[in-house]
Amino acid sequence: MAEESLIEEDRYELDKSMVQTIREAAQAGQADRLAALMQPLHAADIADLLEQVDPDARAEILQVFGTEFDGEILSEIDDSIRDEVIDALEPEVLSEAVRELESDDVVDILEDLDAPQQEVILEALEDDDRAVVEQALRYPEFSAGRLMQRELVAGPEHWTVGEAIDYLRMHDDLPDEFYHLILVDPKFRPTGYVTLGKILGHPRELKLTEIVEDSFQTIEAMEDEAEVAYAFNQYHLISAPVVDEQGRLVGVITIDDAMVVLDEEHEEDILRLAGISEESSLADRVIATTKHRAPWLAVNLVTAVMASLVIAIYEDAIAKIVALAVLMPIVASMGGNAGTQSLTVAVRAIATKDLTGSNVWRVIRREVLVGLVNGVIFAVAMGIVGLIWFGSVQLGAVIAAAMVINLVVAGLAGAGIPVLLERLRIDPALASGAFVTTVTDVVGFFAFLGLATMVLL
Amino acid sequence: MAEESLIEEDRYELDKSMVQTIREAAQAGQADRLAALMQPLHAADIADLLEQVDPDARAEILQVFGTEFDGEILSEIDDSIRDEVIDALEPEVLSEAVRELESDDVVDILEDLDAPQQEVILEALEDDDRAVVEQALRYPEFSAGRLMQRELVAGPEHWTVGEAIDYLRMHDDLPDEFYHLILVDPKFRPTGYVTLGKILGHPRELKLTEIVEDSFQTIEAMEDEAEVAYAFNQYHLISAPVVDEQGRLVGVITIDDAMVVLDEEHEEDILRLAGISEESSLADRVIATTKHRAPWLAVNLVTAVMASLVIAIYEDAIAKIVALAVLMPIVASMGGNAGTQSLTVAVRAIATKDLTGSNVWRVIRREVLVGLVNGVIFAVAMGIVGLIWFGSVQLGAVIAAAMVINLVVAGLAGAGIPVLLERLRIDPALASGAFVTTVTDVVGFFAFLGLATMVLL
Repeated sequence: MAEESLIEEDRYELDKSMVQTIREAAQAGQADRLAALMQPLHAADIADLLEQVDPDARAEILQVFGTEFDGEILSEIDDSIRDEVIDALEPEVLSEAVRELESDDVVDILEDLDAPQQEVILEALEDDDRAVVEQALRYPEFSAGRLMQRELVAGPEHWTVGEAIDYLRMHDDLPDEFYHLILVDPKFRPTGYVTLGKILGHPRELKLTEIVEDSFQTIEAMEDEAEVAYAFNQYHLISAPVVDEQGRLVGVITIDDAMVVLDEEHEEDILRLAGISEESSLADRVIATTKHRAPWLAVNLVTAVMASLVIAIYEDAIAKIVALAVLMPIVASMGGNAGTQSLTVAVRAIATKDLTGSNVWRVIRREVLVGLVNGVIFAVAMGIVGLIWFGSVQLGAVIAAAMVINLVVAGLAGAGIPVLLERLRIDPALASGAFVTTVTDVVGFFAFLGLATMVLL
Repeated sequence: MAEESLIEEDRYELDKSMVQTIREAAQAGQADRLAALMQPLHAADIADLLEQVDPDARAEILQVFGTEFDGEILSEIDDSIRDEVIDALEPEVLSEAVRELESDDVVDILEDLDAPQQEVILEALEDDDRAVVEQALRYPEFSAGRLMQRELVAGPEHWTVGEAIDYLRMHDDLPDEFYHLILVDPKFRPTGYVTLGKILGHPRELKLTEIVEDSFQTIEAMEDEAEVAYAFNQYHLISAPVVDEQGRLVGVITIDDAMVVLDEEHEEDILRLAGISEESSLADRVIATTKHRAPWLAVNLVTAVMASLVIAIYEDAIAKIVALAVLMPIVASMGGNAGTQSLTVAVRAIATKDLTGSNVWRVIRREVLVGLVNGVIFAVAMGIVGLIWFGSVQLGAVIAAAMVINLVVAGLAGAGIPVLLERLRIDPALASGAFVTTVTDVVGFFAFLGLATMVLL
């Protein structure tokens, strides 16, 4: 197999000197030059650029860019600065920008705005678009109903390829992008779908029911968008019809929207595992960032104080053998790391539905056994270090035993706590970390200092 | 806006009692019943089921399922148990299964197998399929060339809608799924593409160049698949033509494959951030799991011992004031958590190309300032705790000062180290954690014990 190296990773990254040139053009108020510089950029890249520059430069660029600003950019930009961007735009520019967008993109923008800004945008829309958007907003946040687009292409089950082609040829208000023709029964309930490729590749007289896709799957409008993303990823769907409670077709979700949700869910998990609010953004200022981080640090302070209370129990022992103070953080730290490994695996497996009622006990047992094996490995290593460093066999034995105990507990807590939280309908990504490290700190100090008191004093 | 609650999350999860019934049918050797039970399941769900049962049940199910086994399942199953499944299948079943698959799925399966198993599968293929697969394997692993499918639909730029439709109608070897017709110049270099929806919705005499998509973007065959996934997500691509070094069309990548890569990249980041090998899987046994975790614990042991060496410097101080031993883990722990928050944000932002040369200094400055603000907040809190607990204003002041120092350093190291590693072309997700916690442990103990020695002794 080939050994060539891959192309370097900078193709899609915004070029620093280009960003600099754009800032200078904006600062100098050169509207034409700015428009020329921005013209080759995709809306998503312009949005990234606006996120990456500082707030002053952002305001300048928006002002000079003016009427060139397009709705796509508003749709791509990070929630955390969207309200700032909206405030910076002239009302006419904003109205024009919003009117260009598809209804699902408008809904996506509206969700995170406060009421007065929502009003401004809703008023900018034409009447029928506004009705569609307001209808979407009636579905709960993070539901399939919010995610779907209402523009869809459907036809009766009895159609032939030729009838479908004639229908498509006659309608000039087809959605911008669509990949399937959905078949519906007389009650408008979807029963299957046909790819456009199959329609184009088969004779006119063939019945559409002969060439429907196996992968057909409907989504319920009240389903959580995270579940929708899971279904697209699991079943390799390209688009899926959305149905209401009576099973009637109300919209379509396409894979590109599902991919965005999947990406957001991952982002949320990674941030939550590190104790950061999922609303946090790189464009946040210092105070907003502090707000998104301080709560977790406060929780951590409480758990750290709890661990200290355990140490305080053994003050006399530490006063007599200072080596205990030197070595005790090692046991706690190893437990914390092993516990984090187990909990990350468990949290991730719960999210991907790989950890279920069928294998939960086997997974917990495995984590405990892995803790035991790693415990023995690092007990030997640390026992030797303790022996050489402090010349005491007993001290080496105590730290070794405490290491085994804490790594076994780390495996048990790391796998068990996320499962327990999931059963209690608490997001395991959000809360597992605090519980697991509390357990490994407390058990680590207890085991090490307790054993030391028994053996060494 | 609506307040209804969303549908519960269990729709796509494998039902425990169904898994149990399937295991019993396999154990009793009831082939017909097993086939009937498995029939409604999607291949991806059967793969999940095989991953979730224990190895003995897996072997039993595969044996009794026998000839019903389909190639799709092999394609969906986790890398970590695919070789086990291949070994458990009868050679004819395996050959049959592999022959059903598309070339890109066969490539995906082959990548992770050892040479003898690769041979078995290559020999099962028909000659022309084998040639296509071997050609794909000539591209490096994780390249766009490996990811793309060779089956594509292209036509010359001068075609009209009618010519395109006639061409599609005449060819009965069209790919299973395709969404665009790619326009190529006489040298077979792609110059644009047209969606099938547009072809179906426009008059026969219209030139295809009139209705090409704005979003057109080509991928280079040597590009890293992670970059490909980024491009699909960033530019909302549905499919993209892949070109060789001469710019000639060699294949197509579709969004469903890009979504799988995006998912894998996230998985890798989450696991690496927790110090777990990205090859790790929930289906691994104890020894394999230990191998995927122990290296990180070994690194952590070294850094923990380094932190202990710092404590050892201050043994005398601790012997005199045991309260120092009680309080010192708090400063280190808070620094570790704040550092992990900063590094997670930085690692994630580097992966999404939101952290670039344009804003790196502003982000680092922000992280330091956030560290300062959080440092002051928790310094006050902890200073008060120290004062009340041990009745010493000086001790409270020392821990408060150490907290501020360590949280500022945590912000600096947390943002700076991933950026530095990225510049050195080392994956920041993999290595940042070890460096950052070493810094926060060492600085935490140094600052607290050093200040205590100066102020209290």
